Amino acid sequence: MKQRNEVPYKIYLSEEELPKAWYNVRADMKNKPAPLLNPGTLQPMTFEELQPVFCDELIRQELDNDTAYIPIPQPIRDFYKMYRPSPLVRAYFLEEKLGTPAKIYYKFEGNNTSGSHKLNSAIAQAYYAKMQGLKGVTTETGAGQWGTALSMACSFFDLDCQVYMVKVSYEQKPFRREVMRTYGAAVTPSPSETTEVGRRILAAHPGTTGSLGCAISEAVEAASKQPGYRYVLGSVLNQVLLHQSIIGLETKAALDKYSIVPDIIIGCAGGGSNLGGLISPFMGEKLRGERDYRIIAAEPASCPSLTRGKFAYDFCDTGMVCPLAKMYTLGSDFIPSANHAGGLRYHGMSSILSQLYHDGLMEAVSVEQTEVFKAAELFARCEGTLPAPESSHAIRAAIDEALKCKETGEEKTIVFGLTGTGYFDMVAYGKFNDGQMSDYVPTDEELAASFAKLPKVNQ
Amino acid sequence: MKQRNEVPYKIYLSEEELPKAWYNVRADMKNKPAPLLNPGTLQPMTFEELQPVFCDELIRQELDNDTAYIPIPQPIRDFYKMYRPSPLVRAYFLEEKLGTPAKIYYKFEGNNTSGSHKLNSAIAQAYYAKMQGLKGVTTETGAGQWGTALSMACSFFDLDCQVYMVKVSYEQKPFRREVMRTYGAAVTPSPSETTEVGRRILAAHPGTTGSLGCAISEAVEAASKQPGYRYVLGSVLNQVLLHQSIIGLETKAALDKYSIVPDIIIGCAGGGSNLGGLISPFMGEKLRGERDYRIIAAEPASCPSLTRGKFAYDFCDTGMVCPLAKMYTLGSDFIPSANHAGGLRYHGMSSILSQLYHDGLMEAVSVEQTEVFKAAELFARCEGTLPAPESSHAIRAAIDEALKCKETGEEKTIVFGLTGTGYFDMVAYGKFNDGQMSDYVPTDEELAASFAKLPKVNQ
Repeated sequence: MKQRNEVPYKIYLSEEELPKAWYNVRADMKNKPAPLLNPGTLQPMTFEELQPVFCDELIRQELDNDTAYIPIPQPIRDFYKMYRPSPLVRAYFLEEKLGTPAKIYYKFEGNNTSGSHKLNSAIAQAYYAKMQGLKGVTTETGAGQWGTALSMACSFFDLDCQVYMVKVSYEQKPFRREVMRTYGAAVTPSPSETTEVGRRILAAHPGTTGSLGCAISEAVEAASKQPGYRYVLGSVLNQVLLHQSIIGLETKAALDKYSIVPDIIIGCAGGGSNLGGLISPFMGEKLRGERDYRIIAAEPASCPSLTRGKFAYDFCDTGMVCPLAKMYTLGSDFIPSANHAGGLRYHGMSSILSQLYHDGLMEAVSVEQTEVFKAAELFARCEGTLPAPESSHAIRAAIDEALKCKETGEEKTIVFGLTGTGYFDMVAYGKFNDGQMSDYVPTDEELAASFAKLPKVNQ
Repeated sequence: MKQRNEVPYKIYLSEEELPKAWYNVRADMKNKPAPLLNPGTLQPMTFEELQPVFCDELIRQELDNDTAYIPIPQPIRDFYKMYRPSPLVRAYFLEEKLGTPAKIYYKFEGNNTSGSHKLNSAIAQAYYAKMQGLKGVTTETGAGQWGTALSMACSFFDLDCQVYMVKVSYEQKPFRREVMRTYGAAVTPSPSETTEVGRRILAAHPGTTGSLGCAISEAVEAASKQPGYRYVLGSVLNQVLLHQSIIGLETKAALDKYSIVPDIIIGCAGGGSNLGGLISPFMGEKLRGERDYRIIAAEPASCPSLTRGKFAYDFCDTGMVCPLAKMYTLGSDFIPSANHAGGLRYHGMSSILSQLYHDGLMEAVSVEQTEVFKAAELFARCEGTLPAPESSHAIRAAIDEALKCKETGEEKTIVFGLTGTGYFDMVAYGKFNDGQMSDYVPTDEELAASFAKLPKVNQ
């Protein structure tokens, strides 16, 4: 086995080396991400307009395109220390299995009970809600990782946590639901009778199993109707990418410790929170002209917002109550095929990442589900950890790059984000184990029909 | 918050500090654990008698009462480096929540896909099987942690892995089963038609949901009937405690780094693998008269082998095909009440721990299930990690000791073993969340009836 003693299996930073500030990549972007628009006036959303829905400090972070470093409050750093710094792992066994000259590293964010990187932003959002003297927060969850993370964060700060969980997940993932309940969250299957929008949808579509867009609409309504409550979101938003920059900052510090300069950085992309966080400091160097990297977003072929979407203003939710965001989008009522497992099913993409992609600063690849699970199984068997289906999109892309190196003989250094574990995704693994997993790629006609419904502001 | 800067939240050893040898506590025991007896001849089992069932090197380790340090082969150390050294965590948030002057540390073994410490022995046993040129191994699993660990280990060394899973768990824990299948294991619900003993039991008890004892008997038969196969076991045996000494060695090294001397060391106890591993080096110091510690086994009130069992020779399995072991036992056909969640349901206890307990070198407490889950919930909410029900017995006992310190004002240092995570135990958590968890304590009459069936060798 090659070079096994050069670099340890796991590079850990000490707790003192935990970053003291988040990095805001917008500060270094020449072309800033387009602002959120008020769907009524088509003017940029103001602080005051956002205030009924979001926490004040989080709105400031959302709108701040200029401050490069935003200090991490001490209580958040203390919480981070329970599960961070997270390890940067050298995938020696995977390299050996592939027979590649490439050096592969992954930043592992799954060693916490939420099972993913979502906790990094959840604890920040809960903290600011608490500091504002709020009683609680509402949110939606699909696969359940964000809801779990938020319930842990709220329990820590003694905040009420109301989670609208897409009904089909609520029923198919009872264990995720129980984790949230153990942390004291109230979990409601969506659509529900508890909101107007929920009742309206139930009347129109009796027996519906819900959608993420519908759950967002319910959570936003629930927040706006209860004094002392705000709505929080686990991806897509600028503030979330800011909090997730902790992933990239730690990754860069760990690499710097061993003077390692990556050639390729890969992250899976749904709404963009993990990818945006992982690449932030590297993208910053690239934007400042200090260093060049290949940066690759790996998205599902069944929900290909970057590779096949339009760069346009669109609604963030299917209920069309949220502001308009300029992003790569498949259209706000695009729903990935039912056979698509796990997360990464959002129709749009972070405005920051969309702008960077539009400006040619990063690449994107789409990968098919069966190939993703093959990569996941290979990874589990040689690296030990059973990965989340979402994370496995990045594994697939990293393996593909490592296999190219095998052909060319290039010793490239590849870093990818292993966002989480798949312990609550065993239904999907079961399908794969039984040979019953299939692939689905939307047709051009389906996408064209969806694009036709984009809001008129784009015309 | 007190002293938060004295000691980090998580003490990590470097990979170079990973122990290079396991510690065999038997070498320092004046009263050695009693030998396994051949149930036919009532003579100590010889190497040759054990050879058809166990791997050669593992038998040597099983019978070796003298060698204090046994080197860890490099391939096992390499595998360990994927998830070890595991962190020793200072429970600052739990201390604060309890308002105790006690300092609480826990050694966290759950940060790997098997979700527990079982992987430490699984990889060793798989390695020795591979070195012997075997094709595969068989085993049983109840709650599924051991089966998962073994399937990961076998997949790593490309060994066939056949797991007999207690039928009720096979049906109620389909996700554990899928994890094992993802690592390539063949999982059979027990009792099954694949073995003679299985067919016999099915004929006698149609519709039975199985038991650990029955699954052991099937796994032993399956190993003995297939050339190139051996049977492996995840707890109770001396060899397993030897491998698990890695837990205690790392714990001691981490404490030594900060000159911390614990007053109390607590582990949950089922078959004894975690407890035995955690306490080994501390018990060694105690046995050699170098230092004194309070060492406490925490066991379920519903399966109280140390606190209410007999110290006697008994069968290790309910099928009575295995050797006799001298241990604290509730009788080999004792089955804990169906309301008992999680593992720790073994009728006996490691011979090593039984002897140490008999000699007054450690204490034992029994804790009731509802109190255990209350401790688990409290722990999850302030320390982040959702613990396994098994581990939560130790949490309960540690909290109880910390609360005593609160009364007396003593600043004791408490170390406990957090053996694993509860991500596959959400059915039990759901019961607790719904207020439907109950306690059960066997009556004296029930135990007396079970003791009456102990083998005659004891008379």
